[in-house]
Amino acid sequence: MKKLFIALLCPLLMQAQVNTDADFIKNLSDEVLRNGQAHDLLRELTKGIGGRLAGSPQFAKAVEWGASALKNAGADKVILQECMMPNWKRGGTDMASIVMIDQKKTTRKLDVLALGNSMGTGGKAITAEVIAVASFDELEAKKDQLKGKIVYYNFKFNPTNIQTFKSYGEVGQYRRNGASRAAKYGAVGVMIRSLTEATDNNPHTGAMAYNDSFPKIPAIALGGDDADYVWNLSKKSSFRVSITTNGHFLPDAKGHNVIAELTGTEFPDEFITVGGHLDSWDVNEGAHDDGAGIVQTIEILRTLKALGYKPKRSIHFVLFANEENGLRGGSKYAEEAKAKNEKHVFALESDEGGFTPRGFGFTMSEKQFEKVQSWLPLLKPYGTEWMRKGGGGADIGPLNRLLGTPLGGYVPDDQRYFDIHHARSDVFENVNKRELMLGAINMGAFIYLVDKYFL
Amino acid sequence: MKKLFIALLCPLLMQAQVNTDADFIKNLSDEVLRNGQAHDLLRELTKGIGGRLAGSPQFAKAVEWGASALKNAGADKVILQECMMPNWKRGGTDMASIVMIDQKKTTRKLDVLALGNSMGTGGKAITAEVIAVASFDELEAKKDQLKGKIVYYNFKFNPTNIQTFKSYGEVGQYRRNGASRAAKYGAVGVMIRSLTEATDNNPHTGAMAYNDSFPKIPAIALGGDDADYVWNLSKKSSFRVSITTNGHFLPDAKGHNVIAELTGTEFPDEFITVGGHLDSWDVNEGAHDDGAGIVQTIEILRTLKALGYKPKRSIHFVLFANEENGLRGGSKYAEEAKAKNEKHVFALESDEGGFTPRGFGFTMSEKQFEKVQSWLPLLKPYGTEWMRKGGGGADIGPLNRLLGTPLGGYVPDDQRYFDIHHARSDVFENVNKRELMLGAINMGAFIYLVDKYFL
Repeated sequence: MKKLFIALLCPLLMQAQVNTDADFIKNLSDEVLRNGQAHDLLRELTKGIGGRLAGSPQFAKAVEWGASALKNAGADKVILQECMMPNWKRGGTDMASIVMIDQKKTTRKLDVLALGNSMGTGGKAITAEVIAVASFDELEAKKDQLKGKIVYYNFKFNPTNIQTFKSYGEVGQYRRNGASRAAKYGAVGVMIRSLTEATDNNPHTGAMAYNDSFPKIPAIALGGDDADYVWNLSKKSSFRVSITTNGHFLPDAKGHNVIAELTGTEFPDEFITVGGHLDSWDVNEGAHDDGAGIVQTIEILRTLKALGYKPKRSIHFVLFANEENGLRGGSKYAEEAKAKNEKHVFALESDEGGFTPRGFGFTMSEKQFEKVQSWLPLLKPYGTEWMRKGGGGADIGPLNRLLGTPLGGYVPDDQRYFDIHHARSDVFENVNKRELMLGAINMGAFIYLVDKYFL
Repeated sequence: MKKLFIALLCPLLMQAQVNTDADFIKNLSDEVLRNGQAHDLLRELTKGIGGRLAGSPQFAKAVEWGASALKNAGADKVILQECMMPNWKRGGTDMASIVMIDQKKTTRKLDVLALGNSMGTGGKAITAEVIAVASFDELEAKKDQLKGKIVYYNFKFNPTNIQTFKSYGEVGQYRRNGASRAAKYGAVGVMIRSLTEATDNNPHTGAMAYNDSFPKIPAIALGGDDADYVWNLSKKSSFRVSITTNGHFLPDAKGHNVIAELTGTEFPDEFITVGGHLDSWDVNEGAHDDGAGIVQTIEILRTLKALGYKPKRSIHFVLFANEENGLRGGSKYAEEAKAKNEKHVFALESDEGGFTPRGFGFTMSEKQFEKVQSWLPLLKPYGTEWMRKGGGGADIGPLNRLLGTPLGGYVPDDQRYFDIHHARSDVFENVNKRELMLGAINMGAFIYLVDKYFL
């Protein structure tokens, strides 16, 4: 009798353990922290494949790896969505050195990286006198002196911004537009201070773009120590810099978004997207940017499956192609969704590193924002401290623009991000296992809540 | 006329810029982020002096360095407060290796550190069969098998705790009491799994204590890989371990708390204390533990002086001696305050690493707690997300016990702390400059508010 009673009661008891959202999220957290594979997957992606710029053999390998990892994690199906990608090649080792006007020999070698998408010097050194400026305003003031010169931009992060992304936003225009702004006045090359406050001398690459009205001059980034050296020298002496780079484009290459699906049980034609970008710069392992977002995405799928969760809506776990220097993957994903008239109810992106959680940012209606805010107490125990307006991500942006999809962006702590962002130091060793997993927990819990309650 | 008008108005305008608490705290933050010396001071302390266990020549050097740094930062006076400290010496390189029962030769060397305060083997190897247990319960169950054996404790951090300090609290008893618990049943040595979830193999030392009723047997910590190896081996085979350590005590040594004061302008006999501990383990640079707390303390003093702040109450900036293996500095500070019948109105400690801010913990009355909570909106822009009950710090604890002083503890993010805590990897390179400075900002702002509004 006692046995029968227990047998009858047990299914109810079992259910009781997960019948609140708090219980489900606790189970999700425990599963990630006990059995999580994100850190091991990140080791595979970073140490096994490494840098994976769009068009590289490593990117193609990463697509295969990602499809396989998503299948292993329990996807109902995995689709490779083809897209054409720009195919920029660094083409060799970037070099620069200082040559004093009154001497023939190099006085200091600079540790530099060509900016992504920049055209090189064809492997031959160009040497020219340097005009150093702190800002575009100073560039304009000196526009008559720039012909035949190399412009050095010494803009700096504003150290007093508490949010480092704000500082990055303020100075990004120098990396993106600095070359053409100088070429307009006849400059033959540009150097920028890397977009970082790091206390080391690592140069940081990143995408730039040319204005087709002006010559496509070479563009390189300097690390912090070299940037200080060049700036201080410019206050005392005239000097030349010799630059050798090899950047060039090959014809566009075929690439793929990797899309895994857990098919919805009630509304299979409504899609929730969660993802990061699979490509990275060529000079590092793309560990925080954005290996972290990739393995968190796979981990969320694995964990929902491990918990036996059957989503109401179809969830897409997407490893986007070509965020860094073209955004072709994100664009393709939204274009195809629009072409098929798909209903995309929410998209979430992780592309700010695998750091400890702070919050989420949202681009959505006021009513939707009120709803997601009501979930904050469920996430607080796991490190989500706030939800704010504004946010999303580069790869899911097109979904919002083309289909009006509400967006969310996972916001980890940002104090260390720009130390390693686009630099050689963005490697596996700089990702903390628990911080990485906490991101997967908070994002996974959020996806569960969106699936269950809609927006 | 216009000039005169501006001249008359300007002092008012200037004052308007700092007449709110938010303005003052913004100025404090800007001063730290623009001109902060915490990172440079930490480099001096860690790279210039290094590990500085109580009783070591390095600790004495650190006292001199700290007094000088506090004077340079603008202290009204700096006092060296003498206290006697335990004088434990590691005495050489700690070694351990596995010797299979059926073989004579070593099959694996283990990377180990003797626990602090443990007595060594006198430089000679002791070799004995290993009994591995997961817990004290298992130890008790096997008590009849322990005579002449080496006990290995394989307790682990509970990975599902979001707060790593909770996990540390749960397993700390194995490090502190494991040796005597095993010696009671005749064991001749103990090995513990290091108190960490780190994915590397660094052993972590830390204080232990003997129960004088039982023999003082050697005690060592193993890194994660070696701990897994030993535990797995124990499930398959019998084996011996050979341990060589040299730990011993010399007679107590003279040491000092370094106390800098900004003397109060209204209530010079009321004291607010802020501090960290100057000593560290001998095997690392004590960068997070607690170089961070030390340089944040000095930075707060420097910044208040740089802003021209005149405190109402006297503020003590204290570099405590001997937190790690004796707590004699913290005890001395409180005992002397009590003997002099001083009024200590608040004390704040930073001893959880130089990581990005999360919050503060408080041990104080309900009414005081309500008051400090009302300040939260002022600190939120700088990363303080919450204030909670419970907290303080080891060195200020005696002030609360002897004088009833209300306490606060600065709580940075704790996900990375136990990766490096008491391990060789607690070095300068693992401290992020901005994270370190944000700690000084939030603590400095809090000290300003306590001074201005009392509790």
